[in-house]
Amino acid sequence: MENIFTDEYFMKKALQEAEMSFEKGEIPVGAVVVIDDKVIARSHNLTELLHDVTAHAEMQCITAAANFLGGKYLTGCTLYVTLEPCQMCAGALYWSQIAKVVFGATDPQRGYRAMGTQLHPKTEVHHGVMATECSNLMTTFFKNKRGN
Amino acid sequence: MENIFTDEYFMKKALQEAEMSFEKGEIPVGAVVVIDDKVIARSHNLTELLHDVTAHAEMQCITAAANFLGGKYLTGCTLYVTLEPCQMCAGALYWSQIAKVVFGATDPQRGYRAMGTQLHPKTEVHHGVMATECSNLMTTFFKNKRGN
Repeated sequence: MENIFTDEYFMKKALQEAEMSFEKGEIPVGAVVVIDDKVIARSHNLTELLHDVTAHAEMQCITAAANFLGGKYLTGCTLYVTLEPCQMCAGALYWSQIAKVVFGATDPQRGYRAMGTQLHPKTEVHHGVMATECSNLMTTFFKNKRGN
Repeated sequence: MENIFTDEYFMKKALQEAEMSFEKGEIPVGAVVVIDDKVIARSHNLTELLHDVTAHAEMQCITAAANFLGGKYLTGCTLYVTLEPCQMCAGALYWSQIAKVVFGATDPQRGYRAMGTQLHPKTEVHHGVMATECSNLMTTFFKNKRGN
């Protein structure tokens, strides 16, 4: 039997979350946390609505997943996020010791790799999953914002 | 008239917060956010109690200060924190564009400087304020934890 629970399957869920940010006028970034092929946390960027720079999709997902699991470590989990995490989110992922991070679009300006932030040595990273869809949503958002 | 609102004055407030972490069995780190010589946010590390790696003193203070000010930027504020911020907290401070960060003890292992994380170019940094007191509290905590 074919496994439907691919990286694309879960990135689509993250992208649905990103679309919810878009609809609210927030920079469209979405994330889900998965364990054993089950989504245990989902969230999207809410920095403008909450007036809170810490309200990135990943941060909310880390808190929610730990709450679900009843412990602060996410060692058996994978985070799917539509955009490459920033320094703050990568720093939080570092502390969580998450098993795997999968991101869609890269962020050459503010992404954790360009900024020099370190993930936990145990964390595996994949990227480029549905990168075009993730990136297009961002591009459309900023185009609309500029009124083009 | 002598100005009582020195860096030491506010670091003492942060240290009182750190002592509250200590009493709860948490790694003792405390922080306050100050604007115009007024404390508008105070918090202490609650990662164990909340099972949440994001519950560092600084993160809670950033959220609380932004909530108080009604906007996400902390451009007129100073954060006093007893320990050098980690990658995550430095990343959050970066987004907040906070005017000044004052920390007590340095963290050569997990501090943002050793990890290579960047604060905002507009952010001024002072350190070493009450470093001995801040550091002693940490040392006592880890000694007690080891049962020495």
